[in-house]
This record gives sequence, C-alpha cells and structure tokens, in this order.
Amino acid sequence: MSNDQHLLSTTLSQETVYNGMIIDVAHVHIQLPNGNKTTYEAVLHKGAAAVVPVDDEDNIYLVKQHRPVADLLSLEIPAGKLDYIGEPHIRCAERELQEETGLRCEQLEHLTDLVTTPAFCTEVIGMFLATGLSQHENHLDDDEFIDVIKMPLSEAVNLVMTGQIRDSKTIAGVLMAWQKLHGPKASI
Amino acid sequence: MSNDQHLLSTTLSQETVYNGMIIDVAHVHIQLPNGNKTTYEAVLHKGAAAVVPVDDEDNIYLVKQHRPVADLLSLEIPAGKLDYIGEPHIRCAERELQEETGLRCEQLEHLTDLVTTPAFCTEVIGMFLATGLSQHENHLDDDEFIDVIKMPLSEAVNLVMTGQIRDSKTIAGVLMAWQKLHGPKASI
Repeated sequence: MSNDQHLLSTTLSQETVYNGMIIDVAHVHIQLPNGNKTTYEAVLHKGAAAVVPVDDEDNIYLVKQHRPVADLLSLEIPAGKLDYIGEPHIRCAERELQEETGLRCEQLEHLTDLVTTPAFCTEVIGMFLATGLSQHENHLDDDEFIDVIKMPLSEAVNLVMTGQIRDSKTIAGVLMAWQKLHGPKASI
Repeated sequence: MSNDQHLLSTTLSQETVYNGMIIDVAHVHIQLPNGNKTTYEAVLHKGAAAVVPVDDEDNIYLVKQHRPVADLLSLEIPAGKLDYIGEPHIRCAERELQEETGLRCEQLEHLTDLVTTPAFCTEVIGMFLATGLSQHENHLDDDEFIDVIKMPLSEAVNLVMTGQIRDSKTIAGVLMAWQKLHGPKASI
C-alpha cells in the first residue's frame, strides 16, 4: 500500500469521553496526511456476527423484529453481538443462528467482514452463509420478540430491490448469497 | 401491520446522555410487548446520502480513503452527511457526488433508504444510482484526502465478493446497482 501513503492519517492518541451500555464514545486525535491535526469522534462497538441461512430448497430464513431506535419493523438475517471482545465471529454466528431460529447448519462459510459505518464506528460484523440446515428448538431471551420468516431467496432479493429490506447487513447478506449461489460470474 | 402487534414495543420517553460532534447518545425508555420496561442505548445521527455513479461504459467511480476510526483503507461509493436534519437526501447525494468526484449526472434514481445499524443507531442513508455522467471539477474540503478510482462495475462486484470492499453502504450500493443493471430477474 506504499502508493497510498498520501491518503494515510496517523492516530496520535485517543480518550474515552462516554461509557455506555453497548457502545462507548472516544475522541481520536489524528494527524492528517498534510500534517494538520484534528479530532474524530468514534463510536466503539465490540463487534457482531450475522448468518444468511439458505436451505436445500433455496429458502432463506429471516427474523422480523421491531427496532424502536430506528423506528423500523425490520426483516433481518439472524445476528447478534459478540459475547466478549475477541470472541471468534464464527462461534457467535452459530450461536445466534440457533438461538433466534432453532436452525443448525452443516456448513458455515465466511462471506465478508462488513464494516457498518466506517466514518465513525468500529463495529465489524462477521458474515457467514449457512447451508445444510436442520430445524431444532430456538432459545430466545425473555425480552426478545421476533418472528422467523422463511421465503425463497429470490423473494428476499426482491424485498431488497423494492426497499422493503433496509438493514445494511441484511441487504449485503441477501445479495452476496444470491450472487454466490445464482449470480452470473461477475468477471466477464 | 396489525398482525405484527405482538412484536411492537412502545417508546415511553427519551433523554440525551451525551452530546457529541457528529452523534449524540440517548437513553430510550421502552415498554416491551410483554409489558416489561427496559432502556435501549441509541446513537443519534442526522443521516446521510450516497451515490453509485455508473457511466455509459458500465464503469463505477469509487473513492479510496483512509478511515482511521475503523482502521481501514476503504473503497467506498461517494457519500456524505446531510448538511442539516431534514435536508432532502437527493440534494445531498448530488452535492457529494460532485464534491468528491467532480461528476455531474443526468439521472439520479433512488435505490433504497439504508439503515446502517438499526439495533442502536438512527442513521439512514438515502442511496441513489447516478447515470448520464459528465466530468467536471471536484471540490474537496481542505482536510479531505481521497483518490477517485474508476473500474468496471463487474470488478467492484468481485471486490465485494472477495472481501476487499467491506463498507456496508458500498456493498449494498454495488450489488444493488449490479442487480438492477445486469442481474437475472430475481422473481422466477
């Protein structure tokens, strides 16, 4: 990346200015490529994992849930926060899949490490495609209210393209799974 | 949505607990569907707009920039925060496209209103497909350091699928544009 030197800032120091329940906020002091100094605001998040579960009949399982912070009744792929900083994403993915949907999977294939909003937040979501699915009991938390919705993957793609699925990790997960399983090879 | 009543929480009250530079943090007091009360932490963000610029030869324009908060040298679609709460997304999209890349467009088509991370953040990014492009001068802020990279849209799809494009709005924008312009009709 030596030809990218003219783009690179240097982080000089950082201090936490807010300690929260699931996020902290820090001031990050930066030296820009032109030598100027500035301060960025950073939302610190420990990370998460998400799973795109697709069965042998090409159905996807989504969870419908109310997101009061975003004022959204949202269709999303199963996902959850890491239990602790450094927890392997794949372990979190497997747990959240089973807790939210009762599904277990034979294969869990890494799709990407999605950065939700790199301008101001450290959150990284490890994204996986789960196949070889079998249905077991789910284990919701007492205060978790979700419906599991099974639909053809093609229908989920349509819900993305018509603006009815709006969660960024779910748009990414649905379209990456579609591209992987059905898309024309992009490189022509 | 009457059959979704069992999923819906009620927001009782909200107070700001941190006032920041680009975000605030609030405690949102919620009554859950089972009557239990709880408090969610909410990152309040005024919103943003993003543009997928695709020219007549099927090239996309991306901006390469360093994101020190996320520790990422990132390839992203042109985007920026709203100037004020309530600014029309499409006006912000047009401005950011021209400021960052010098491109103007004849058509700006709404793709979706992406919610970056609905569990804890209010940020909504209005996403647009820009076509009919023509090159003019760009107008970077003094402390903005980016390279504009032009590549075939198919190559950007490959960079998504191989994990080299990791920003959520860019994954969504590239794959939605690809699906719209080249994808097989998803509904079979």
